[in-house]
Amino acid sequence: MNKVLPISGFPEWLPSVRAVEQRCMETLKKTFEQSGFLNIETRAIEPLDVLLSKGDDKEIYVLKRLHDDPEAKDDNVKFGLHFDLTVPFARYVQEFQNDLVFPFKRYQMQKVWRGERKQEGRYREFYQCDIDIVGSGSLPLAFDAELLRTLNSCMQQLPIPDVTIKINNRKVLQGFYEGVGIDDTAAVLRVVDKIAKIGADEVLKQLVNDLGLSHIAAEKCLALGQITANDLTFIDQVKALEVESELLDEGLNELKYVLNLNPHDNIYVDLSIARGLDYYTGTVYEGFLNGHEHIGAVCSGGRYDHLVKSSRTALPGVGVSIGLTRLLGYLNQAGLLDVPTQAQTQVLVLLNDEESRAKSWVTADALRAKGINVEVFHNPVGFGKQMKYAHKKGVQYVLFLEENDTYAVKHLASGEQYVIDINSWVPEA
Amino acid sequence: MNKVLPISGFPEWLPSVRAVEQRCMETLKKTFEQSGFLNIETRAIEPLDVLLSKGDDKEIYVLKRLHDDPEAKDDNVKFGLHFDLTVPFARYVQEFQNDLVFPFKRYQMQKVWRGERKQEGRYREFYQCDIDIVGSGSLPLAFDAELLRTLNSCMQQLPIPDVTIKINNRKVLQGFYEGVGIDDTAAVLRVVDKIAKIGADEVLKQLVNDLGLSHIAAEKCLALGQITANDLTFIDQVKALEVESELLDEGLNELKYVLNLNPHDNIYVDLSIARGLDYYTGTVYEGFLNGHEHIGAVCSGGRYDHLVKSSRTALPGVGVSIGLTRLLGYLNQAGLLDVPTQAQTQVLVLLNDEESRAKSWVTADALRAKGINVEVFHNPVGFGKQMKYAHKKGVQYVLFLEENDTYAVKHLASGEQYVIDINSWVPEA
Repeated sequence: MNKVLPISGFPEWLPSVRAVEQRCMETLKKTFEQSGFLNIETRAIEPLDVLLSKGDDKEIYVLKRLHDDPEAKDDNVKFGLHFDLTVPFARYVQEFQNDLVFPFKRYQMQKVWRGERKQEGRYREFYQCDIDIVGSGSLPLAFDAELLRTLNSCMQQLPIPDVTIKINNRKVLQGFYEGVGIDDTAAVLRVVDKIAKIGADEVLKQLVNDLGLSHIAAEKCLALGQITANDLTFIDQVKALEVESELLDEGLNELKYVLNLNPHDNIYVDLSIARGLDYYTGTVYEGFLNGHEHIGAVCSGGRYDHLVKSSRTALPGVGVSIGLTRLLGYLNQAGLLDVPTQAQTQVLVLLNDEESRAKSWVTADALRAKGINVEVFHNPVGFGKQMKYAHKKGVQYVLFLEENDTYAVKHLASGEQYVIDINSWVPEA
Repeated sequence: MNKVLPISGFPEWLPSVRAVEQRCMETLKKTFEQSGFLNIETRAIEPLDVLLSKGDDKEIYVLKRLHDDPEAKDDNVKFGLHFDLTVPFARYVQEFQNDLVFPFKRYQMQKVWRGERKQEGRYREFYQCDIDIVGSGSLPLAFDAELLRTLNSCMQQLPIPDVTIKINNRKVLQGFYEGVGIDDTAAVLRVVDKIAKIGADEVLKQLVNDLGLSHIAAEKCLALGQITANDLTFIDQVKALEVESELLDEGLNELKYVLNLNPHDNIYVDLSIARGLDYYTGTVYEGFLNGHEHIGAVCSGGRYDHLVKSSRTALPGVGVSIGLTRLLGYLNQAGLLDVPTQAQTQVLVLLNDEESRAKSWVTADALRAKGINVEVFHNPVGFGKQMKYAHKKGVQYVLFLEENDTYAVKHLASGEQYVIDINSWVPEA
């Protein structure tokens, strides 16, 4: 092991930052489970053709056995690391559908990999924390609203700045574009999706010049993408553009339903939100950190009615993904993450001599049985050295046996020292 | 997505089995943290040369970007998925040594990958749950004993059959072989390590025929490998073989020290235990499921004094790894795993009509705030259909609003139904 260098895009945290990440994941786990979501994990790999059929715009890491055996049939199937959790989840639902209870609500928190080119601030390995609900045959719109509620509750509990969640519905965009007379609605969607990035003028130019829209049609598409509202006024704003389409009306009704069930100051209808991936068919969500919108969406998702295609039964779903690594990585780098300096070890038992080691271990175990995190110092050196370790590690208390066989503790922050009853003592919170 | 087939060696669980796995990991996490171990996660990949220098007997999955760019310098470094957590940990310690407090106690629970040939019961992706302690400069032997104690405590708390932990010390083997006059001690070690697999006669034959040992030397090596004891009698058994070596005496003293601090019926000295990997330099551990020894060690590890080599300061360590996926996979397949049939959802709130949805959600949130797992049924269909879902999911209680605006619950197992005060009610455990 000669050179030890970080690998671009593969972040690793110190234990203190990892502790924050763990606490975030525990918060999400609790919130997900309290809303009826069950956990699964899927394997890290999928057949390459499965990945490519859903993720043509994603960079994929392909796997190869070092001692590849060209004659083994198994080695001829190409596998890649998954680039998100939605595609593996859709495959899992199809594979295990006879053993699941539908609507199937699951959460999944795993790392995903993207074989992108090296780039500052770009992650190639990161945690996604996903919740999805998949129905058998159909999935009521109520789940689109419920999911938003659960997502909002999660984001509010994480130790991060406030989050604004923007919602839209692909039927609104699709229906509107069709009503305007556009054939290649996907191409328009891709251009309008860039409003925030390239500005309204450039979008207009591209719609007219590159896609051949009439100026009126382009203006209307642009106007639609600029509608946002925290209440139902978005409907009248759309109606004012005088475009007729059944699909548009359906989309507006769905949006209205989802917003009505989520009356929160931080939840907006924003008709510019489209989500790049083409498997979304209805509601779409994107969440942004207030004051840090430039880092892009920190959570996103939507309704997908046809992701699981070849099954005899339709398996429509709705889901969102929280990009935890990106979120914490950004906040940590910006100094906005509250990283504890205090060690998880609450009590350090000082070691008098080698002979008392076994007894000290028993004392420590008794404290652990009460849920306390305890270490016993490893060497019977002078107490001064042992105290130094306690300070370096940031433990709360040291505990030691006094000459008259009574136990005492010292609270490091205050310097207070007092005799305790070892059977009843617990550290103060 | 046309064919959906499992991939050999990449296990996936149903939510109920995953729930058991999660609980096991929570138990380990708690036990590790209560003993002062901090969590880290390392990236899934390491440079191929790092992996190969430590794992020549391991099959490695090599990564390649699908859209590889031969001109990008970065693409010329080959990376592979890690095959264990010890090698990445050693690299992590070296990389971050200036930011860590030593002795550094860490736990790590991540998946590892081995690109082995397809084989029944062989995992290619599996969880390892590791604890290691690394010292800066030196690491007292007390940690070899402490680690064994923590490991034993973990294994006793998992929902698995009883575990017997066998310990040995590489210095005993190395010293003994040297004392017998053997040069290639590693070769002897590899052969003796196979006693359980191929039998004593075959080991003897290979030592004499393949390695050229004298019959007397071979007999002694074999006799050493057959010594086991739950107490200090192993020392006299070794002395009776009349082999002199300082290293042997050192190893015996270390073993004695570690066993003395772990006086448990299920902890044995077994001088046949060697551990294949050549980075171990002292204490070695292997744990076996009582009555299921044929599946091999379910946890193992040892002392490694030179794993982190090029550092200016020596960074000796001791660690063990629990093979959680293999363990649970075997027990589940053998029907020995206690998989809960009860859903994690405790309460299903029945939905009267669309108008009451928002109110039902508020009711559910109030219960969640008390730590209860609650779902609200998604469709305002007849209560019969809603009850059917409750039974299928195995929830404990359904909760509903009666006509006089009072809440009532029905306990599904007993069929009991009664009016409750929604503000104070909690489900019985």
